[in-house]
Amino acid sequence: MKKLFTALLSVSIACAHAQTTDSVAVRRIYSEALANGKSYEWLRYLTKQIGPRLSGSEGAQKAVDWTKQVMEQQGFDRVFLQDVMVPHWVRGAKEEAFIKNGNQKTTVPIAALGGSVATGPKGVEAGVIEVKSFPELRAMSPDKVKGKIVFFNRPMDPTKINTFEAYGGAVDQRANGATEAAKLGAVGAIVRSMTNVHDDYPHVGGMRYATGVPLIPTAAISTNGADLLSKSLAENPNLTFYFKQNCETLPDAKSYNVVGELKGSEKPDEIIVVGGHLDSWDLAEGAHDDGAGCVQSIEVLRILKTLGIKPKRTIRAVMFMNEENGLRGGVQYADLAKKNNEKHIAAVESDNGGFTPRGFGIVGTPAQREKVNPWKPLLAPYGLTEIGAGSGGADIGPLAQLGTVLFGFKPDSQRYFDYHHTMVDRFETVSQRELELGAASMAALVYLLDQHGL
Amino acid sequence: MKKLFTALLSVSIACAHAQTTDSVAVRRIYSEALANGKSYEWLRYLTKQIGPRLSGSEGAQKAVDWTKQVMEQQGFDRVFLQDVMVPHWVRGAKEEAFIKNGNQKTTVPIAALGGSVATGPKGVEAGVIEVKSFPELRAMSPDKVKGKIVFFNRPMDPTKINTFEAYGGAVDQRANGATEAAKLGAVGAIVRSMTNVHDDYPHVGGMRYATGVPLIPTAAISTNGADLLSKSLAENPNLTFYFKQNCETLPDAKSYNVVGELKGSEKPDEIIVVGGHLDSWDLAEGAHDDGAGCVQSIEVLRILKTLGIKPKRTIRAVMFMNEENGLRGGVQYADLAKKNNEKHIAAVESDNGGFTPRGFGIVGTPAQREKVNPWKPLLAPYGLTEIGAGSGGADIGPLAQLGTVLFGFKPDSQRYFDYHHTMVDRFETVSQRELELGAASMAALVYLLDQHGL
Repeated sequence: MKKLFTALLSVSIACAHAQTTDSVAVRRIYSEALANGKSYEWLRYLTKQIGPRLSGSEGAQKAVDWTKQVMEQQGFDRVFLQDVMVPHWVRGAKEEAFIKNGNQKTTVPIAALGGSVATGPKGVEAGVIEVKSFPELRAMSPDKVKGKIVFFNRPMDPTKINTFEAYGGAVDQRANGATEAAKLGAVGAIVRSMTNVHDDYPHVGGMRYATGVPLIPTAAISTNGADLLSKSLAENPNLTFYFKQNCETLPDAKSYNVVGELKGSEKPDEIIVVGGHLDSWDLAEGAHDDGAGCVQSIEVLRILKTLGIKPKRTIRAVMFMNEENGLRGGVQYADLAKKNNEKHIAAVESDNGGFTPRGFGIVGTPAQREKVNPWKPLLAPYGLTEIGAGSGGADIGPLAQLGTVLFGFKPDSQRYFDYHHTMVDRFETVSQRELELGAASMAALVYLLDQHGL
Repeated sequence: MKKLFTALLSVSIACAHAQTTDSVAVRRIYSEALANGKSYEWLRYLTKQIGPRLSGSEGAQKAVDWTKQVMEQQGFDRVFLQDVMVPHWVRGAKEEAFIKNGNQKTTVPIAALGGSVATGPKGVEAGVIEVKSFPELRAMSPDKVKGKIVFFNRPMDPTKINTFEAYGGAVDQRANGATEAAKLGAVGAIVRSMTNVHDDYPHVGGMRYATGVPLIPTAAISTNGADLLSKSLAENPNLTFYFKQNCETLPDAKSYNVVGELKGSEKPDEIIVVGGHLDSWDLAEGAHDDGAGCVQSIEVLRILKTLGIKPKRTIRAVMFMNEENGLRGGVQYADLAKKNNEKHIAAVESDNGGFTPRGFGIVGTPAQREKVNPWKPLLAPYGLTEIGAGSGGADIGPLAQLGTVLFGFKPDSQRYFDYHHTMVDRFETVSQRELELGAASMAALVYLLDQHGL
């Protein structure tokens, strides 16, 4: 009994000691990020000096070269590229669009959706059918839709507290609207921008064509433009809409994931990934989406190295290529991990913007999620109060098949879709402190994952 | 035993029922705020059409008239003014300041602190003593300080997670720097702006003179200006600093608190206050400080009324006057409450900006704080995860002496001091969703306070 007591006592002392050590380390991590952080200046360079970096573009290549160089300058143990072939879609000349209502032409802001075909040089002009959902469209007689432009105008639900949930409830229109419209013989699809804000920016994003269905051109229209079109249709259902877009899909291009590594001192074969995606939409500087996630991931390794925290396991910062229109980088990373028999115990992704931290979503078994519970009191003082089952991240998603536990960094979601996939996703909309707190939060989680495993 | 069981069961069913009813009401409150909210358009008017509204100014009077009118138009049961005499400090012509280093004059942005005296028409030019703290200053020989300008240059600590804590650790320089400098014979006091950002705006705010000490002029200098001054002093300790300011304290002016009321149906004599302050600094539109708190408070009553939620107790939205440089409105409100024998059970203030909600600070007894515990699961899904002992609010502070439980709305603090007391505290820095979520959070708390008392 006495022995048991002694054993329990020593375990309990050891635990208390670990908690204290962890608590001190977490505090040091936040202080380093907030007092000496580098992520903000890196983000300034990535957005202002490099700018848009859609897969296959010159910007994307510059971003590969530059992030590699930054990580080399930081003296990480290893920095390397992973080849990956990526889709290469280009917008071409700026789109044109107007509502033609009797003799009146009103220009509205549109932008081709990523992956769309062009309209041809004369553009497309047709009558408009406005719908709020696929069931509403499918219930229509093809006669009514044939030769028309289908206008998908279901807004994101403003009453959802988490804006990603509202996005999830509307984005089918953007992803599959063209296909659904084409099935009924439409000649084009115009989609209300995915945002809660009333603005004049088309919010673009990826779309897909289904096989066996005609490829019709599709574009995003700004929310103000959508409201105007809807109002005009209510007044005159026979108005026409004209749009011209000049986009094109070129042959796949060669690109890269960029990887920086701190080698583990005790279990170098166990790998923890922290990452974001390096590509952005062509209209955006990609500050929140996802320059933030990239610079935060590099910052995680910098903080650990600067503080002299030698990881037991191998920590990798990964800049994934092609999240926006293909996910080829994420798939390639997991394929190589499998091929090379690498053991990835955990992966953390930041791809929800450089906003103030709220927590982490976890994709793993209940037992794995429970392992995280003792860390919650260590993270709560830093505003990380929402830690539990949730989403990981698109790029790290393919690692799930290898048994990797996925963590999605959850910053506050309220402003994300104000900027998402537009020309206003720029450096000036990022708060330095919010960005740095995000980097520190990721570093704290990586530290705990490294210390205690999963 | 069976009776006890039946009794327990019925209590438990009643509790579950109340929780369900509350949960539905809270959800309706958030949906109304997010789908049909009025706070954002009200804030646009208050900031863009009325603008700065320092106590005693024309803007303050316009804000009184307009908020009264808004609440009357909403059809609240009663809208009334409370007279209050307020300090009337005016800035006068824009300040001038430069660093004179040899033959080189470099202009730097300064602004007189609220309550400061002027320099006289010729301004003040003197050598500069830079200090980081009062102890450092007090340790100096008066010979060294006499005839000089004292430059208080201790930054806000960037490693504090909550920026209000960092503010609290630096603001003594602004409030009492002039007095401490004057005690040693200084002729002026220049204070580093209270912000974590490196910018070119003087962040102003109130200061106080102690009795029996000479009144010397004092101003805020932008953080970039402070960094430049500090660097210049390191190079040349004998440089001089010149500043001229033209501010003046006029006789007290008549002003008002503005109060709107929904009458309680069951306990009309029990009052719940929800409020913000209507005055702002003269350089600022006062969007976050504290236009946000005012429009959110009006919105709380509008939401309850619109949803047909008839409060049991009397709910008052109070626009307090003169928080910034006197707190006369808050003191007057509590004095009148005492004089009229009003029973104020709770008061909620929003004066920390229109940012995304994190929780509420509570000033009350442990037993009172415990009464709030059952509400926490109702509020957590809306991001209100930080509810516990904390700060209330300056304006509602004087109600504490009447036994009122105080609640300080806690939005995320990261961006507040980017804008605080400057010309960039403007409408464009407010996110509509963040503002509306704040209004809904306050309405939800007021609803629960009204339903269950304290």
